[in-house]
Amino acid sequence: MDDECFRLMGTLIEPRYVQQACDARRSHTQKFRTLLANRQLPETGWDALTLRLFLTDVAAMDSNLFVGNVGMGEREGRVFSDLVRERHYGFAHGIGRSGDIGAVQPKAAGSSLVSVLAKILALVSIHLLCSKRLSLTLVLSALRGERPGATKVIFCRIDQKSCVKSILTAGFEPLVIDGVLQGDQVCTNMEEVSNTVLREGAHTVLCVLSCSSCFAPRAPDDVVAIARFCRKNNVPHVINNAYGVQSRRMMHEIDVASTTGRVDITVQSTDKNFMVPVGGAILASAHRELVQRVLETYPGRASGSPSLDLLMTLLQLGQNGWRSLLDERERTFAQLHARLVHFAERVGERVLESPRNDISIALSLSTFETRHADVCELGSQLFRRLVSGARVVPRTEKQAAISGVRFDGGFGAHHPAYPSSFLTVASAVGHTDADMDSFFNKIEKVFATSGSKDSVAENTGRLDIE
Amino acid sequence: MDDECFRLMGTLIEPRYVQQACDARRSHTQKFRTLLANRQLPETGWDALTLRLFLTDVAAMDSNLFVGNVGMGEREGRVFSDLVRERHYGFAHGIGRSGDIGAVQPKAAGSSLVSVLAKILALVSIHLLCSKRLSLTLVLSALRGERPGATKVIFCRIDQKSCVKSILTAGFEPLVIDGVLQGDQVCTNMEEVSNTVLREGAHTVLCVLSCSSCFAPRAPDDVVAIARFCRKNNVPHVINNAYGVQSRRMMHEIDVASTTGRVDITVQSTDKNFMVPVGGAILASAHRELVQRVLETYPGRASGSPSLDLLMTLLQLGQNGWRSLLDERERTFAQLHARLVHFAERVGERVLESPRNDISIALSLSTFETRHADVCELGSQLFRRLVSGARVVPRTEKQAAISGVRFDGGFGAHHPAYPSSFLTVASAVGHTDADMDSFFNKIEKVFATSGSKDSVAENTGRLDIE
Amino acid sequence: MDDECFRLMGTLIEPRYVQQACDARRSHTQKFRTLLANRQLPETGWDALTLRLFLTDVAAMDSNLFVGNVGMGEREGRVFSDLVRERHYGFAHGIGRSGDIGAVQPKAAGSSLVSVLAKILALVSIHLLCSKRLSLTLVLSALRGERPGATKVIFCRIDQKSCVKSILTAGFEPLVIDGVLQGDQVCTNMEEVSNTVLREGAHTVLCVLSCSSCFAPRAPDDVVAIARFCRKNNVPHVINNAYGVQSRRMMHEIDVASTTGRVDITVQSTDKNFMVPVGGAILASAHRELVQRVLETYPGRASGSPSLDLLMTLLQLGQNGWRSLLDERERTFAQLHARLVHFAERVGERVLESPRNDISIALSLSTFETRHADVCELGSQLFRRLVSGARVVPRTEKQAAISGVRFDGGFGAHHPAYPSSFLTVASAVGHTDADMDSFFNKIEKVFATSGSKDSVAENTGRLDIE
Amino acid sequence: MDDECFRLMGTLIEPRYVQQACDARRSHTQKFRTLLANRQLPETGWDALTLRLFLTDVAAMDSNLFVGNVGMGEREGRVFSDLVRERHYGFAHGIGRSGDIGAVQPKAAGSSLVSVLAKILALVSIHLLCSKRLSLTLVLSALRGERPGATKVIFCRIDQKSCVKSILTAGFEPLVIDGVLQGDQVCTNMEEVSNTVLREGAHTVLCVLSCSSCFAPRAPDDVVAIARFCRKNNVPHVINNAYGVQSRRMMHEIDVASTTGRVDITVQSTDKNFMVPVGGAILASAHRELVQRVLETYPGRASGSPSLDLLMTLLQLGQNGWRSLLDERERTFAQLHARLVHFAERVGERVLESPRNDISIALSLSTFETRHADVCELGSQLFRRLVSGARVVPRTEKQAAISGVRFDGGFGAHHPAYPSSFLTVASAVGHTDADMDSFFNKIEKVFATSGSKDSVAENTGRLDIE
Repeated sequence: MDDECFRLMGTLIEPRYVQQACDARRSHTQKFRTLLANRQLPETGWDALTLRLFLTDVAAMDSNLFVGNVGMGEREGRVFSDLVRERHYGFAHGIGRSGDIGAVQPKAAGSSLVSVLAKILALVSIHLLCSKRLSLTLVLSALRGERPGATKVIFCRIDQKSCVKSILTAGFEPLVIDGVLQGDQVCTNMEEVSNTVLREGAHTVLCVLSCSSCFAPRAPDDVVAIARFCRKNNVPHVINNAYGVQSRRMMHEIDVASTTGRVDITVQSTDKNFMVPVGGAILASAHRELVQRVLETYPGRASGSPSLDLLMTLLQLGQNGWRSLLDERERTFAQLHARLVHFAERVGERVLESPRNDISIALSLSTFETRHADVCELGSQLFRRLVSGARVVPRTEKQAAISGVRFDGGFGAHHPAYPSSFLTVASAVGHTDADMDSFFNKIEKVFATSGSKDSVAENTGRLDIE
Repeated sequence: MDDECFRLMGTLIEPRYVQQACDARRSHTQKFRTLLANRQLPETGWDALTLRLFLTDVAAMDSNLFVGNVGMGEREGRVFSDLVRERHYGFAHGIGRSGDIGAVQPKAAGSSLVSVLAKILALVSIHLLCSKRLSLTLVLSALRGERPGATKVIFCRIDQKSCVKSILTAGFEPLVIDGVLQGDQVCTNMEEVSNTVLREGAHTVLCVLSCSSCFAPRAPDDVVAIARFCRKNNVPHVINNAYGVQSRRMMHEIDVASTTGRVDITVQSTDKNFMVPVGGAILASAHRELVQRVLETYPGRASGSPSLDLLMTLLQLGQNGWRSLLDERERTFAQLHARLVHFAERVGERVLESPRNDISIALSLSTFETRHADVCELGSQLFRRLVSGARVVPRTEKQAAISGVRFDGGFGAHHPAYPSSFLTVASAVGHTDADMDSFFNKIEKVFATSGSKDSVAENTGRLDIE
Repeated sequence: MDDECFRLMGTLIEPRYVQQACDARRSHTQKFRTLLANRQLPETGWDALTLRLFLTDVAAMDSNLFVGNVGMGEREGRVFSDLVRERHYGFAHGIGRSGDIGAVQPKAAGSSLVSVLAKILALVSIHLLCSKRLSLTLVLSALRGERPGATKVIFCRIDQKSCVKSILTAGFEPLVIDGVLQGDQVCTNMEEVSNTVLREGAHTVLCVLSCSSCFAPRAPDDVVAIARFCRKNNVPHVINNAYGVQSRRMMHEIDVASTTGRVDITVQSTDKNFMVPVGGAILASAHRELVQRVLETYPGRASGSPSLDLLMTLLQLGQNGWRSLLDERERTFAQLHARLVHFAERVGERVLESPRNDISIALSLSTFETRHADVCELGSQLFRRLVSGARVVPRTEKQAAISGVRFDGGFGAHHPAYPSSFLTVASAVGHTDADMDSFFNKIEKVFATSGSKDSVAENTGRLDIE
Repeated sequence: MDDECFRLMGTLIEPRYVQQACDARRSHTQKFRTLLANRQLPETGWDALTLRLFLTDVAAMDSNLFVGNVGMGEREGRVFSDLVRERHYGFAHGIGRSGDIGAVQPKAAGSSLVSVLAKILALVSIHLLCSKRLSLTLVLSALRGERPGATKVIFCRIDQKSCVKSILTAGFEPLVIDGVLQGDQVCTNMEEVSNTVLREGAHTVLCVLSCSSCFAPRAPDDVVAIARFCRKNNVPHVINNAYGVQSRRMMHEIDVASTTGRVDITVQSTDKNFMVPVGGAILASAHRELVQRVLETYPGRASGSPSLDLLMTLLQLGQNGWRSLLDERERTFAQLHARLVHFAERVGERVLESPRNDISIALSLSTFETRHADVCELGSQLFRRLVSGARVVPRTEKQAAISGVRFDGGFGAHHPAYPSSFLTVASAVGHTDADMDSFFNKIEKVFATSGSKDSVAENTGRLDIE
């Protein structure tokens, strides 16, 4: 619609109503201008219709939607299914060009704009200088260029298969540094990190890979200490900040690490932090050249879906919405902690203190364990009662190996010999009070039926598996 | 999006790609301009995305979607459900103003535009001078004003409850004129129409209500003869043209009636002619004042849904699409007739000749009837086999009454004593060859299992009700 | 999906995960069962996905979506446009049968179910015995049957064109009974109603048509007194309860009128009460036969869109949501009143007291009027500033006529000689505090720039039309 | 909906209509069963509503959509934006588990089913034994395990950055084997492949990476000869079959290569072959263990979007639709070739014969080149006229380097010294006759305005840039 369209409408319906509609339309356009000029999350989130208006307009900028476009190549954004085309708002070209995923795709100015805006807005959200979705493997590959001959990655142990594998896939050897216990908490073994780097020779080390978001009782790594060590020893430092964007404390700590030490790049998931479907990652780095190298490492185009989901979500959130999400998460975390302490007392267990971890909390299963051969059954029972995401880690000292990499002690506890079994739960963005009520309701029943010394069963009477 | 938006985008992604997108966008805008300036169905139908772009823009012209709009009345287009809002593209105000459904609604320039465009485009489709969706009752009420004292409606009998009731609801008395047989065909009894008007006195007659689309063996009324009679005797003439828009022959006949005689207004359904969900009607009339009076008769606003459905469909059809639909319908009708003749021969029945009816065809059930007490069972069997819309009319001479109005002979045959039972089927827009294949497949089985003298059953072996 | 499907899935992915999904699915099914068995609004509203699951399943019950269905009639629910089909979830058949809009449409069990459920759930919401969407005209037509010879409708004056026209369209003569002033409030002139009925003869009167929701300073009619009078004099009583469902006070008064007097039927809009797009009406009546007669009066099928919108909205609201809407409305109304009183004081006007009207409030424009020839300009200014729904009614004693029916005094004030000009605003369901803030912000500017004695302009400095 | 729901509906609307709906529903269920039992593309594609019914049901199998599910982890499929949730049909969990993208995700049986079905159906489409979406990098990484010490990849030169980079990212060294000219065609230099492997030592070679779909005048590699060589020398063979699935000839050749030689795995894009948005890849391999190793190499979960798009498209296509797409492509390719030959004659150029390439065709720019310093301008002009995907490759012998890997001769010609500049166009699935008409229309104008000796300009008169 342009002014001529509006003029013509005025010949069909009363011009003064058209005029008002035309004026009102400017308000929408003004929102678009403000976004494009300020390059910041709008203070207040956009409503669904403004968003749809925007996306429809932007999608029409991709060549596959041009009136009169003639595709003479092998990949022209043709989409067979109307349903598929529609769910993507007509976007089909993905992002990036062969050889640089950060480049604007000439056939797809609209897709490229979505990607650029998602990047810019996510960046505002996380208060860092540059960001880009991409995976850990690519980061490690990109570092290869500036560390010829380096073959090892110092891996602050976190018991999750994907980290180890991303190191192996990039063709490097992980040197696993077990954590150390400080009270209940599994903390960074800074001494061992230091010894290992010095022993192996800094030049053989591609980077230290630390982790700033993890399941309690593991604490987020001491990224400030690691960063200072890395700066001093001239070793790159990559932080796996999976779902740490939602923790103001962790984002502050990364800021401090970046300014007082060395942080080359941080990698975070979009789904866990921004409540979008699985599939995207954000890279944040103050080092432009490094980011550029990572982008150039990505071979070919990528799906535009994660950018689109992220942009849509951020525009609907706005700064206020994002702040509320974080406030709310802090509130529910505090409450989860308080209720878990209370529950632990009643059932003869205790909350394993991991004060540095402000997303996840672990509950000991010591007395539970003494009565039950298999604590894993607890996890199954919770799963069957529709509790997802709660993890039970049994105490064990037997070794595990992930693709040939050895882990001392039971895989899951991030430590060679964690002294007790435990259950870990988290309070992440989007977690509600109703979730929590329901969780405690269910875990009480499970503990009761499992014959714990607690008297819950007697109080609640017959306990059906619902 | 305006030029400033595009300029700003050029600071985010490469200006020359933005420029091309901006140029390409003009092609969409050009389509919109052409529609608004020419006020004709586009030659080629629009694709789904162009349509969506258009509707999203037009919906944003309604005040409920204005940024900063403040609703201080009792009806401000607020919609609770996101799903409901979305399925209406944000349109919520309906059409019309209190007291005139044809007026532009000041709060809703977008809704009004949809309504005006649907009206204009449908008009192009049906080649008449003015049109408006509205029901028969309103038309009759609107005629009241120009015929004070007239209390009777000459009703060319069509055995459908809704016609009788629309007369009664408007507060008039229907005088039922039975059809006469010409061969198999039930035709307009012009003599009786004439006699009745003269006997009752033309001034007591509100109008003659004829019907130009009906189930065979009734023929469409001879609207030309009626129109000439009405002009001569100064009696209004209303044509119930329910699904006749899809018949070029009937539209031509109405044209002739309009120019050589008197046709005050024709009323047609949107769903049957234009393949949209049930709910809309189109009024077409060369008499501006009459149409205006009908519009003013409609008390209050109406749903905007039928206009929206019609506009969307017409824009997606385009003139080419509409022409193809009509061509295709003529082809399938001819084929249905041929196959039915063939089938009739095999089962010892015959097609009842109704050459003036080019949408619907009747098959006699004479021999079938002699073997089966209840021909209605045939209808049930077809229904159970998922054949919808086929009607079985048993021969009978007993009277029926609709809301106190007497109909001689069995209701359904449009005649006091139709000589045989029959089955009626139609070939309307959207009917496919696959439909027809499947229909003949099923009716063969039904006839066979019903023990007709035909040997179909022996040929096809065991006949399961699928 | 049936059990066999789930079993087969278990051969593709791990059976125990399928089992859990299958169990979880029962929770959705349980919601559907509960709805169908209890026939009540769910306590808590359904989320969008449950609703979509339900609608997709129900739509598949219409014959046009049957696999293998063969349409052999002229109206088989064929839909040309994918976009249109989709926005109706595949529903295309509308509701009702030729001759009875309340009947189940054999081709469309799904559409019929939507309609029946919408009716039942809306009924629960409004605590009455029976309900059906339909218009006032049909009600009056339906009453004709039981009042042969009655030609007049006693019309408690409300200055809205649609009411008068619905009487005229049904073929009756309205006898307008002006309201009387009680303080600022325009109230029912019970004496004149009574005198008129007795003077004309009760048998000549089709019904008394009262109105229970209107713009201040008119009060809702005293439906209890009218109902008692009607019971005593054996005259039907129809209540136009347009947007009164949202007022608990008015619904209670109608309950009292129904039990202590005569209320044949009440008619209400769906859009104003339930926040759906314009297009539906609900009839509520304790008289089954009357309702049935109205349904049979409706000639033919109707659009299924209003039922669908209403059902979707009610299911998403749930009882809790509905209650919240009502609570919230009462709160915002109280606040609107308080702020308007405060504003009136500052600008030398006053709130016209209409204590019986708890939706709409009027502000005098007396001092404003003395300074401005044309108070209507105030309405225009508000409209231009994007305030919709605020009505300015100038003081005047000149007559008006709607389709030949005379109204003494300026049309709009519901009274032959209302002593002052006024502005009316409403606080209806969905009205927000932000709306109100914005309204007062804008009206202050308008009053200030219009040169009222108030000093707002001096305080706010330059006043741009935004 | 289960039987109890249908029974309850029978208490609300007529049981026999419900019964019919219930029966009809079985037809849909039957389609689902057939799919799950046969594990083949349905013969005829599904309509949009059947597909939606299926996806809505399957999405409800993911735990995030369970009624009563309690998420206590950091990633529970919570989605903030309604619009985002809806466009993914509620799917949010992505596919795979930490450590194995091929594993069923316990929280997401529905997402897993989509992924498994997409895999199975795509497999049917391409007539191979196993397939999985994943990238080339992961394949190379996965091969590392079975070739310890191998550091080199024999790379049959194709001038596309992404191939080179996928080798580098996986940590290997590409050995570029230039093609040889056979007539106009750039063919596999089998001798050089062989010499290089033998010179370097087969044990140092990770694999030969051939390419079976490329831009003319390069021919697809002689995968049969390579496969035989690889089998004999015990070297893995990976085929980059980017958009070759749409070429029956190429799929047949790969079949022959697989049976008579060694093909470890083939990698293809979903977007180019199946007309879905960019983002997915299909791996096809007869070696189960290799595929499993690749899956385990993928670190963590992946977006479920590509699987969903692919499954939706395949179900809508059906076997018939897929066959039609291939037939149609062959037809348009033949036509493109014929018209290009004709055009070439007129403008004094010729089609570069590349008989083995049945998707892409090259046109010499020899005479064009002699008159214009910069042939690249031709590409720009086509781009500005909205021709996308046409590539202009200027003749040059200067070297290029991609991330340090040297390419002799101009990058783009796949050959160190291709004798002429050329233009390449393709006819891929979805290409239409209208596209072709428009392309020839535009290229004629461009050649004409560029001053070619051809007289097109004189014929067509003034040539506007449209």
